[in-house]
Amino acid sequence: MYIPAHFHETDPSAIGAMIAAHPLAQVVAHTAQGLVANPLPLLAVDETTLVGHVALANDMHNVVRSGSDVLIIFQGNNAYISPNWYPSKSIDHAVVPTWNYETVHIHGRISFQHDNKSKIDAVGRLTKTHEQATNGAQAWKMADAPPDYLAKMLDGIVAIQIDITRTFAKPKLSQNKSADDINGVADALHQRGDKDIAAAIRQPDGSD
Amino acid sequence: MYIPAHFHETDPSAIGAMIAAHPLAQVVAHTAQGLVANPLPLLAVDETTLVGHVALANDMHNVVRSGSDVLIIFQGNNAYISPNWYPSKSIDHAVVPTWNYETVHIHGRISFQHDNKSKIDAVGRLTKTHEQATNGAQAWKMADAPPDYLAKMLDGIVAIQIDITRTFAKPKLSQNKSADDINGVADALHQRGDKDIAAAIRQPDGSD
Repeated sequence: MYIPAHFHETDPSAIGAMIAAHPLAQVVAHTAQGLVANPLPLLAVDETTLVGHVALANDMHNVVRSGSDVLIIFQGNNAYISPNWYPSKSIDHAVVPTWNYETVHIHGRISFQHDNKSKIDAVGRLTKTHEQATNGAQAWKMADAPPDYLAKMLDGIVAIQIDITRTFAKPKLSQNKSADDINGVADALHQRGDKDIAAAIRQPDGSD
Repeated sequence: MYIPAHFHETDPSAIGAMIAAHPLAQVVAHTAQGLVANPLPLLAVDETTLVGHVALANDMHNVVRSGSDVLIIFQGNNAYISPNWYPSKSIDHAVVPTWNYETVHIHGRISFQHDNKSKIDAVGRLTKTHEQATNGAQAWKMADAPPDYLAKMLDGIVAIQIDITRTFAKPKLSQNKSADDINGVADALHQRGDKDIAAAIRQPDGSD
């Protein structure tokens, strides 16, 4: 991925926050059938490991061999940026449109696990993370489902693990613009209802 | 991509609407350096062609040869779906979490154009589409910028065209659930502020 210096994020905690805020990944592999991808929510266990699961009916775990290199693409909020939103436009009109976005590309090696322990671990981690964030004290738990139903559900999935080899993070959020132009963009997006990316543009380190 | 029948969209106008609503694509290629991807806003000129542009400084147009197969990934609104949101949970608790999303995967052959006509065509189409949608009668036009500045900007880009070979569209929006559970999910997401995906779930054909 092309990353000019002003859009290059290397802080592991900032990258972790980008993944945690937008955990739906596209898992891409080059196979005998060509390029294939599948959208899958993944969880960063730490800075070196992602976990998740796929449906047993998804032939990804057959056409992609354990140990293969994969590219994991996380994509967050994004928006068209109109030149009209830059106060500096009135000076010399030397402005053009662009697109702002946050994306993380992770290269790694994928492996598939069919044992119950790995499947329960992956499902349990994802469930706990998203239920606590969504429902707090009312979090749904795997134990809320009947054991035979849960066993059938686990029979229908395959756990996946990605061992990370390289990470590239690109929050492209007008960091190359003046403070006035950054505020102009953030104000316009906020007024349009794109409040998440407006806040990220105002505070590209995510501290807002 | 694994697409169960109830999540498989084949209507070209519905697929076109999904791309138009979320035009930031991840353009993926398999190269001598392995898998590489770049986020780029693309425009569907018709059902067989996508156009866009990359920075001249982006080595994608060197490491990916014109004529290469690429995978174009469009990803729209997405959200974690809690089992708590299904009214049917109270019957037998036979529910588990999932993720809802809309994604379109397009396979095609990419080509790069360095001539001014192709570059102006790509930039002009993207600008017109997004400015009219964003600013209506106040749309910014390329002619608003000084000609020498615009010429310099055009010198800094390369036009791209993708000739589409296969398209896979997967709106995964609880279509396999009962009307009550679909409404429960849409209500919960709407209350949480995720109004776009709530509306898409209520009307998976995009007619809302």
